[in-house]
Amino acid sequence: MSPETSALPGTVRPRGRTERVRQAVTDATRTLLLEQGYRELSVERVAEVAGVAKSTVYRRWRDTAGLLLELMTELSTGEIPLVDTGSVEEDLLSLARGIAHVYTETNAGPMVLALIAESVQNERVADGLREFWHHRNDRAAESVRRAIERGDLPADTDPVEVIRMLGAPFYYRMLVTHEPLDDDLARRAAATALAAARAGDLRKR
Amino acid sequence: MSPETSALPGTVRPRGRTERVRQAVTDATRTLLLEQGYRELSVERVAEVAGVAKSTVYRRWRDTAGLLLELMTELSTGEIPLVDTGSVEEDLLSLARGIAHVYTETNAGPMVLALIAESVQNERVADGLREFWHHRNDRAAESVRRAIERGDLPADTDPVEVIRMLGAPFYYRMLVTHEPLDDDLARRAAATALAAARAGDLRKR
Repeated sequence: MSPETSALPGTVRPRGRTERVRQAVTDATRTLLLEQGYRELSVERVAEVAGVAKSTVYRRWRDTAGLLLELMTELSTGEIPLVDTGSVEEDLLSLARGIAHVYTETNAGPMVLALIAESVQNERVADGLREFWHHRNDRAAESVRRAIERGDLPADTDPVEVIRMLGAPFYYRMLVTHEPLDDDLARRAAATALAAARAGDLRKR
Repeated sequence: MSPETSALPGTVRPRGRTERVRQAVTDATRTLLLEQGYRELSVERVAEVAGVAKSTVYRRWRDTAGLLLELMTELSTGEIPLVDTGSVEEDLLSLARGIAHVYTETNAGPMVLALIAESVQNERVADGLREFWHHRNDRAAESVRRAIERGDLPADTDPVEVIRMLGAPFYYRMLVTHEPLDDDLARRAAATALAAARAGDLRKR
């Protein structure tokens, strides 16, 4: 019998305990990741900091990859606000500035970078990231879909590809060239994606 | 007295031995990296596979970061051929196809990805990558400089920024969204960077 179902009826609500354990483990994973980096992350340390039995963490999350994937579900809930200004230029600039903000001013930056580093050698994390960004980019693509409906962009523009092109320069600088993310970059990234869409270079295949 | 200088005059040429050790260590690092991934990389294993004393490897390369940086000097020598066709469209498309080729068809892909993953938590490797890409992008920017001289792009275009915009979508797909690199991507990446440059979105600051 698992700890989640062993409580007497009425003493602990099973869902409440499950959620409390999940929250404690997620908090511990985030804390350890930010303080010591993903290389030091282990199921043992997370269980210790969370005050949860190791066996529970192993059973539910299996390994550090599972713990990192759990963290992603938190990240996926609205870190970057999406706006609808009626202008695709403004919507995309706002998105680009939101990305720069998240990575320079919040804890999400180190967490996402840790996930990306892990994904290079961990197929489960790579799959998780693929899924995560698929949904995130699809949501952000709404602004491009509206622009197409308004006739502001070619009708066969690939909305998600515009968002990919906008996002790419940020990750390139963080991961590849290790150059800073600033407002110039946000403006260039938004303008570049839009120029390519307008020129018809980002049509559906 | 170091092994490099302890040989009797005339028996071993110091430079020859130094270079042989460097080559053996670089080969061993590459082999282990490709076979087992960077997480399994250690000075001990590299020394063993290279047939070189551990103390020599520690003294010259210090740690796995030093070994990875040594590998980069190999990568920096002309993996991607740069062409001069007289047309900036053609030059950039050739560059984009070269990037796709290197990462899908050669050993450079896993090595660069290992370096990037390491750079997330290793400042020395991050500095090495910054330096490496600075030189590589500056060389590739020659095609953009020629286009500016011919009057094909705005005079105040930032040549290196055009190359960064062209390269970004490849690393974004490899590292972030884990989507494939194909010829569609090469054409879009080249066209996107060019459309942005033409629209005046990649001017010098």
